Amino acid sequence: MLGGVTTSEQDAAYAILDEGLVAHVGFVVDNQPFVVPMAYGRDGDRLLLHASVASRFARTLANGAPVCVTVTLLDGLVIARSQFHHSMNYRSVMVVGEARRIADPTEAEAALVTLVDHIIPGRSSEARPGNRVEHRRTAVLAVPLDSASLKVRSGGPTDEPEDIATGGWAGVIPLQIGVGAPVPDDLSTDLGIPPSIAGFRRP
Amino acid sequence: MLGGVTTSEQDAAYAILDEGLVAHVGFVVDNQPFVVPMAYGRDGDRLLLHASVASRFARTLANGAPVCVTVTLLDGLVIARSQFHHSMNYRSVMVVGEARRIADPTEAEAALVTLVDHIIPGRSSEARPGNRVEHRRTAVLAVPLDSASLKVRSGGPTDEPEDIATGGWAGVIPLQIGVGAPVPDDLSTDLGIPPSIAGFRRP
Repeated sequence: MLGGVTTSEQDAAYAILDEGLVAHVGFVVDNQPFVVPMAYGRDGDRLLLHASVASRFARTLANGAPVCVTVTLLDGLVIARSQFHHSMNYRSVMVVGEARRIADPTEAEAALVTLVDHIIPGRSSEARPGNRVEHRRTAVLAVPLDSASLKVRSGGPTDEPEDIATGGWAGVIPLQIGVGAPVPDDLSTDLGIPPSIAGFRRP
Repeated sequence: MLGGVTTSEQDAAYAILDEGLVAHVGFVVDNQPFVVPMAYGRDGDRLLLHASVASRFARTLANGAPVCVTVTLLDGLVIARSQFHHSMNYRSVMVVGEARRIADPTEAEAALVTLVDHIIPGRSSEARPGNRVEHRRTAVLAVPLDSASLKVRSGGPTDEPEDIATGGWAGVIPLQIGVGAPVPDDLSTDLGIPPSIAGFRRP
């Protein structure tokens, strides 16, 4: 449960998190912030991240350092009649909290399955599960979703009356993630495309 | 000039910055990192940001606090035969440094024009320029590009030999920013679409 927000805001925040593919994760080393793009997943009221155990990120965060995880979906460019009122339509969730490494191997393995299926629903059942060596190389971290804030802009521009009076064009250029047809590797050109891949974000 | 990178790496980093629409900007307040999505622009060897003068971001950064600006272009989902080797193709630039507020009004106004034209080339000449009130409300900040790092992944999956031997499908799902047809607001339905909007990311 998100703190300080209504149930509908929580639903909206979770929907954004579930739709996004990449999070930008901020952490601090010697007062310098770093922001890195990462895959992520959601398991109920916590965000899941993973990284190589040797990474600066995993070493910094495994012991409960403060972290910020932001997911942004860009929905459009807002075109106004004045430069000042140009804007973007977007939906963004910012989660602040402390990451904790998931120490229990069974729980960590389940979290990695959640990460795979977050990106491509159903994909985990088509691919070989991780083995002991792969799991040992991977730090899995969880960030509780109890302190998150939601920012959303939608709709057209808000121009000044005197700019509207000039009769200039204004509107929105819609943006979304464009998904191309799957490209097989050299060994897969004659193989059928797995269901999760064929169905990825297809209407 | 980026420190510690070759000219071709610098060219690649600048190309990523020039292609991106949104940056994720990290800053620190009381040891807590915050990561916020922002529009940005590039003027030679510095990144330009803007924010309301009243915002936490502007108040935190105007005096030279450390900042991290990360721009990520997501190019594809890498589908492997093992869960472990699933990955993403992306191009990302991480800039660390200190932001400084641009105090000179003429320089700040020019930076705001650069911000508009970064998102939509040529748009500034079609829209009303900012006026004194709008400029007073806007803090314009510059981050030098002399400490940036480039991360790129491209190509297909790198599966283990034993997974390749199983004969499973592997490949890439290409992703890009999908641009829809411009949607006029209620007052613009009968107006011609301005050249910068009609030409936005059209081949």
